[in-house]
Amino acid sequence: MKILQVGSSGVIGRAVTAELGQRHQIVTASRSTGEFRVDIEDPRSVENLFQQVGEFDALVCAAGAVHFAPLAEFSVGQYAVGLQSKLMGQVNLVRSGLKYLRDGGSFTLTSGPTNDDPIPLGTSSAMVNGALEGFVRGAAIELRRDRRINLVSPTMLEESASLFGSYFMGTKGVATSDVVQGYVKSVEGAQTGCVYRIGWSRDR
Amino acid sequence: MKILQVGSSGVIGRAVTAELGQRHQIVTASRSTGEFRVDIEDPRSVENLFQQVGEFDALVCAAGAVHFAPLAEFSVGQYAVGLQSKLMGQVNLVRSGLKYLRDGGSFTLTSGPTNDDPIPLGTSSAMVNGALEGFVRGAAIELRRDRRINLVSPTMLEESASLFGSYFMGTKGVATSDVVQGYVKSVEGAQTGCVYRIGWSRDR
Repeated sequence: MKILQVGSSGVIGRAVTAELGQRHQIVTASRSTGEFRVDIEDPRSVENLFQQVGEFDALVCAAGAVHFAPLAEFSVGQYAVGLQSKLMGQVNLVRSGLKYLRDGGSFTLTSGPTNDDPIPLGTSSAMVNGALEGFVRGAAIELRRDRRINLVSPTMLEESASLFGSYFMGTKGVATSDVVQGYVKSVEGAQTGCVYRIGWSRDR
Repeated sequence: MKILQVGSSGVIGRAVTAELGQRHQIVTASRSTGEFRVDIEDPRSVENLFQQVGEFDALVCAAGAVHFAPLAEFSVGQYAVGLQSKLMGQVNLVRSGLKYLRDGGSFTLTSGPTNDDPIPLGTSSAMVNGALEGFVRGAAIELRRDRRINLVSPTMLEESASLFGSYFMGTKGVATSDVVQGYVKSVEGAQTGCVYRIGWSRDR
């Protein structure tokens, strides 16, 4: 398969490239590294990426920013960060990518647990992750020609615990190698409209 | 209780006013009718509403627009309709309303089933409804002074079946009187962070 991986410089992105790269051709794209430059918030940049990459069999996105702040202090502009980047950035990849995704191919997006397992300061994250779940289920029933879309929702990574652990009190960090399996299942499996919850500490 | 009801001219809004108005003081606001004018997409209009209304014990919102279109034809601007109106419009009411909501008071927002029970043309609706679920759960754990927030998620109304039934094939319309009970439970009950799914035809 030819797999376009957007967000290739982060912990998850690098691990996904290493795993899927053993069996497939990986084309990497991100804001600052990888084979292609893309700003997922900008629909023209996204369209430009696909014009350069051409047709592909799978798209994996592990990119997107969200702001964290107390509910009482959150500004409209701070909510817009997550809506424009992690939410609409990934939706832009699907919108434009539809024309380039081959029959039987798949989209795999990334969310997180905060919509069902909320944390303090996390109302924007919760909003964006919930939106991604809805979008993926909705898009799955509209895709044609055996094309699929799934969402990987990992909790905090083990190796991020020193940075983010205080935001996720009571959450056991998950091994990056476990998170990678969500992307493997989405890309190399046959399911669609699924949310792969990796290392969640609260059942939905 | 003094209840501020935003979106008072629709089927649900009128029914909620009729029910809660039997036991409480209702202040109505909407874009074109009611005691106060408000454009929930505009944070300044929302803040202006609260300055006029002053403190209250409950806010109920049954307002917000979403665009419906095929996934392959959806534009960024069409997705923005739902994000700015039904999602951020309701979030604006919570953001600004926090300063005016009395101790023990509640916010009640409105979503719909499409994030978990998707329909064709509904990727924006699914996104917005999923975002509202995440936001409400996230906000619930940050509210203080016994203040609460819940979400009512009604499926298609019986009386809308002639208009929208072709979008919701296989969905039994729900009586408006049943939907009203979700708002009653949220306002007059004691729960927080809940999604009241009214008449869903698919269990989550």
